[in-house]
Amino acid sequence: MINRLCIIGVGLIGGSLARDLRREGLVGEVVGASRTTSNLKRALELGVIDRYDTNIAAAVKEADMVVVAVPLGAMTDIFRALRGKLDDGAVVTDVGSAKGSVLEAATDAFGEVPGFLVPAHPIAGTEHSGVDASMEGMFKDRMVILTPAPETRADAAQKVKSMWQGTGAKIIEMSASHHDEVLAATSHLPHMLAYTLVDVLGRMEERVEIFRFAAGGFRDFTRIASSDPQMWHDICFANRDALVHALEHFSDDLNQAIDAIRRGDSEAIKALFTRAKALRDEYTKNG
Amino acid sequence: MINRLCIIGVGLIGGSLARDLRREGLVGEVVGASRTTSNLKRALELGVIDRYDTNIAAAVKEADMVVVAVPLGAMTDIFRALRGKLDDGAVVTDVGSAKGSVLEAATDAFGEVPGFLVPAHPIAGTEHSGVDASMEGMFKDRMVILTPAPETRADAAQKVKSMWQGTGAKIIEMSASHHDEVLAATSHLPHMLAYTLVDVLGRMEERVEIFRFAAGGFRDFTRIASSDPQMWHDICFANRDALVHALEHFSDDLNQAIDAIRRGDSEAIKALFTRAKALRDEYTKNG
Repeated sequence: MINRLCIIGVGLIGGSLARDLRREGLVGEVVGASRTTSNLKRALELGVIDRYDTNIAAAVKEADMVVVAVPLGAMTDIFRALRGKLDDGAVVTDVGSAKGSVLEAATDAFGEVPGFLVPAHPIAGTEHSGVDASMEGMFKDRMVILTPAPETRADAAQKVKSMWQGTGAKIIEMSASHHDEVLAATSHLPHMLAYTLVDVLGRMEERVEIFRFAAGGFRDFTRIASSDPQMWHDICFANRDALVHALEHFSDDLNQAIDAIRRGDSEAIKALFTRAKALRDEYTKNG
Repeated sequence: MINRLCIIGVGLIGGSLARDLRREGLVGEVVGASRTTSNLKRALELGVIDRYDTNIAAAVKEADMVVVAVPLGAMTDIFRALRGKLDDGAVVTDVGSAKGSVLEAATDAFGEVPGFLVPAHPIAGTEHSGVDASMEGMFKDRMVILTPAPETRADAAQKVKSMWQGTGAKIIEMSASHHDEVLAATSHLPHMLAYTLVDVLGRMEERVEIFRFAAGGFRDFTRIASSDPQMWHDICFANRDALVHALEHFSDDLNQAIDAIRRGDSEAIKALFTRAKALRDEYTKNG
């Protein structure tokens, strides 16, 4: 049970978390915080939060759980604003899509990774953003990765774990660096490809026609290119090393495939497509 | 009205077309044809066809409409099998995803592009294949591109147009070469990227974990990598020049994006993502 939850950044993820915890009766009061009021007012209207404060120090007063759900680029500033303002016993977690950078931001702001900090990443969301897109049940049966540092207190990790379990999510623990490698491959790389593809097509001469003839497959394929640019910009740079590594790997393989098509290497292309289909079918058969 | 429709290749597209024409009462008899019987038997069980013949010459006897719905690599052989076997007045169309290669196959088989041939491409389908995946209503409000050659008879083109209009599709005409450029960009290129991405991830050390943590966005992004490998192999080589051109364009732009991330060019990445999101949102806002 959380007595007072402070959500800093009441958007898609922060808002959906608050909705679930309220529905399940797992939270007393929910306080929203942000530097601007528009999204907070909307969150209040929607009943996602009980009240808000644009002063972060005031917002976290007497909160026993603080969830930082802001773009990764704002993490250091938020941590700095929290320094010395948290109640004893308060636990802080985040929802960022890269985790090494969160530990760096914490070290910058607090001088070390504080024991109350439990970096976390719910593997959920849509291409939409903002509290209007938040919904109940978003985390049900989805995974939440916790990446506790050696400094992280066990009771703090347990409290964050219990909070996410309350939404129906499955909890997994791994190191921040391992998380960042895996997510670079499965999430950050595909976003780069989708954004780049749409941009390439948009700069072709036949631009209008191209989008007109884009069928259902294209719509699905590029859905993630409708994600928030600022958030994804921050993720790319927060996880730069792992992302560049994944991108280079992909680029090499794509160039090999282009060469195979150029030289008419039918077997290589058929083998590539056959491997990929078998893999995807295998790993998505349960949903 | 079609008196006798022969569908050569009763799979996802051929089967769905037959279902719609039957439902709308736009066809008398539907004859299935293929070199193998398994899919034809299933099509008969499902009520998609009235009868079948594995001898193509026999199957097209007295058919006034012949729809060739086989992978592009089989097109020349099918056209050869049709030579001299068609009724006077019979119209032949296809559903291939590349159109220049269909005109080449026709020229190979018939010595010229015959006046009764109306190359066509319904922009519809799913990642599934086979007659079991066929369904009514697949073409409703979707586009069907006709690419008549100068040799194509106007009455033949009109008959194919009417057939597709009967399924609720919208008909568009353009040249085969223009079609191939546009589809290389919107469909063949994305398929190459999806197949390559899944293959890259599948060969990473953390393979099992990577697919385990792949979220909804990844599932959508890679859906087209579950498409039939043989069919897409054929498409890639049938539309090789336009596809290689689109791939090179994409590869250049991706390398520029990788460089921008490497050198920390925040503005370039934010501009890229912002352009792409605006474009996708604009072109998909109606559906």
